[in-house]
Amino acid sequence: MNAPVTDTSSHNAELAAQIQTLGQQARQAARTLMTAPGHAKAAALRAMAARLEQDKAILQAENAKDLEAARNNGLAPAMVDRLMLSDKALKTMITGLLQIADMPDPVGSQTASSTRPNGMRVGQMRVPIGVIGIIYESRPNVTIDAAALCLKSGNATILRGGSEAFHSNRALGAVIQAGLADAGLPQHAVQVVGTTDRAAVGMLATLTDYIDVIIPRGGKGLIARLAAEARVPLLKHLDGNCHVYIDEAADLDKAHDIALNAKTYRYGICGAMETLLVHAAVAPKILPRLAQSLLDKGVELRGCERTRALIPQALPATDEDWATEYLEPILAIRIVDDIGQAMDHIARWSSGHTEAIVTENLHAATQFQREVDSSSVYINLPTCFADGFEYGLGAEIGISTNRLHARGPVGLEGLTTLKWVLTGDGQLRG
Amino acid sequence: MNAPVTDTSSHNAELAAQIQTLGQQARQAARTLMTAPGHAKAAALRAMAARLEQDKAILQAENAKDLEAARNNGLAPAMVDRLMLSDKALKTMITGLLQIADMPDPVGSQTASSTRPNGMRVGQMRVPIGVIGIIYESRPNVTIDAAALCLKSGNATILRGGSEAFHSNRALGAVIQAGLADAGLPQHAVQVVGTTDRAAVGMLATLTDYIDVIIPRGGKGLIARLAAEARVPLLKHLDGNCHVYIDEAADLDKAHDIALNAKTYRYGICGAMETLLVHAAVAPKILPRLAQSLLDKGVELRGCERTRALIPQALPATDEDWATEYLEPILAIRIVDDIGQAMDHIARWSSGHTEAIVTENLHAATQFQREVDSSSVYINLPTCFADGFEYGLGAEIGISTNRLHARGPVGLEGLTTLKWVLTGDGQLRG
Repeated sequence: MNAPVTDTSSHNAELAAQIQTLGQQARQAARTLMTAPGHAKAAALRAMAARLEQDKAILQAENAKDLEAARNNGLAPAMVDRLMLSDKALKTMITGLLQIADMPDPVGSQTASSTRPNGMRVGQMRVPIGVIGIIYESRPNVTIDAAALCLKSGNATILRGGSEAFHSNRALGAVIQAGLADAGLPQHAVQVVGTTDRAAVGMLATLTDYIDVIIPRGGKGLIARLAAEARVPLLKHLDGNCHVYIDEAADLDKAHDIALNAKTYRYGICGAMETLLVHAAVAPKILPRLAQSLLDKGVELRGCERTRALIPQALPATDEDWATEYLEPILAIRIVDDIGQAMDHIARWSSGHTEAIVTENLHAATQFQREVDSSSVYINLPTCFADGFEYGLGAEIGISTNRLHARGPVGLEGLTTLKWVLTGDGQLRG
Repeated sequence: MNAPVTDTSSHNAELAAQIQTLGQQARQAARTLMTAPGHAKAAALRAMAARLEQDKAILQAENAKDLEAARNNGLAPAMVDRLMLSDKALKTMITGLLQIADMPDPVGSQTASSTRPNGMRVGQMRVPIGVIGIIYESRPNVTIDAAALCLKSGNATILRGGSEAFHSNRALGAVIQAGLADAGLPQHAVQVVGTTDRAAVGMLATLTDYIDVIIPRGGKGLIARLAAEARVPLLKHLDGNCHVYIDEAADLDKAHDIALNAKTYRYGICGAMETLLVHAAVAPKILPRLAQSLLDKGVELRGCERTRALIPQALPATDEDWATEYLEPILAIRIVDDIGQAMDHIARWSSGHTEAIVTENLHAATQFQREVDSSSVYINLPTCFADGFEYGLGAEIGISTNRLHARGPVGLEGLTTLKWVLTGDGQLRG
């Protein structure tokens, strides 16, 4: 399926042709990248790091255009901050590139193989996915991070950033392509879409001949739009409505610290606890003290009736609270009669991202970890650990809420796939 | 997204409501199945096998209705054969059920785990996908096979077979549900769509709230239709345009036997060789002899000019031949100058299913296996080995030509996914 021309205007036809060309170039580059040696990919990443340092003045001049436009358009100061290619932001990108360069190459490794009765060996080899589209919002650091992870895993990348960062992303794209050239890799291995036209997003999302997967990094609006329009498979990150359940057999000091950390480590991350479930037997012992710690941090509490009987400051919680990913200093609290009710609540309301149980009881811990159907399930840990670096992946392109392919934090391995490799000596079938 | 009502007629609204209900019931059953013990799933499969034997008369009476309709509709005798629930066909289903019952339960196994510097353990646990839709054409044995594999892997299943097998599939569905009940598992774990209305297919393919993946088993028309309509991810099986490349360092006796087996083991399977590539240095030695063996089996040969100079009986091959999955006793042959040209041909024309090299040269073998981007790549084996049983998977739901999730033959593992499981003792973040 080619990019559909949804409008017959020459503008849209031209845009479609441009996106089509990007796709063809990416596919061609992907074939070279698929078998590029690890040292060449690492050399390209180091060359990009060197050029980020070297071209700082150019990058910051281009970035200044975006910043000025952002201020003129009345963008919120926090958003303007996120846009800024400060010395510190560039330094972070450089460090990231060098770290990814040093990681082991995921491509070409093989799983354990088995030998069939006829003597042929059957195994699987890790290979790149092919061409990855990244559609993201304003942070220009994604341009570098995503390109680096996709390149390391042997994929060609088409990057479509937010229009607010247009000049910055274009300049970063030039740095990336120069780094690729320095290492003798095809420049089309990483391409930045050279237009702010929003129609380009829909065209990329239907370019099934040339793009193998699209990773959207942005708000729910972007993801909803892509989920409705895309024919290319999406590796998507939806809500993190995360739960901590304090079991009757919890160590209450641990429970206090885990719940407090899960909520207050950072309010805006997808792993932040949004609803706390507490076993009725321990609620009177743990809730008043925990509530006080949360209130001291400025967290607004909303609870079920039994919770409100213990915490007078809590507002009444409704079904909407159980369903909400606040990403703010607000916490919903519900007292449950047993672990079954806790798991029922999670099955009913969770977005399937990350849940945790606090307990010293082995059976409860095992049951919770086995039966809760979320992409990450923890025992005696705060949900805010949901992060590829914390899991030891060394890098993270995002957190997947898909059920297929990669689920939870996605590192380099999630950007690859497996092919079957069979070796024989003339065995025949039948 | 709910099933869209594409027509306002009360009929379509009713059908949409019916499909919606199937989805809700499947989702609910999936939660129970997700944690059902292995012995209960095995017991259900054995109970189904017993009931297939016991209810043979009923099944064959229902099957007779389909057979009669098929004959009245002038269905080809081969198609009528495929429809028939003969004693032998039932016996094969029973054997299959018992084999699947005896396989190890894939659910709940854990990957190797690592311990992070803070002491928390990070691993992954294999879990069911959830709800799987199977959309297939006339063979009623798929009803049993697919239900058994999905159940064994802990998934709820919605089965939508071809209308030609409607009565047979409904009767098989009753046997399956009775077997589930015998083992105390929810009857909605396997549901057969109770209508022949083709609109049901489109409704299932967009039921993203309740179906996690759809596996189409049928012709290209069905898959093309689903690829255009589906919002639910597809695990799909497209063309098998498979290649064997005879390298200059091939053992020519092995090459002869491998190529002959790859083409003639069975013409209609997706792993059948459709194009043979031969290194120019060995073509004069191998091709005349191999051509004779193929012609003796009644295979029509089509070749490039150089091939035709060696094999006068070969018709001229065109680009359409390079692109075609014949599934018939026809073979395209091309002589190439080196392994690079062979791999270029494959990159240009292959459907990415299965390719093989015949060589005694380690470097050529390794290069081919590493660089050819197909879901299976063989050394010194015929492409007709593309099959889950041959790979030792113990069962096969199909062969995936997707790049993501499962690629190549899909067994029980491909019907599961992984979740992250972290275990700590009160570690906090930040």
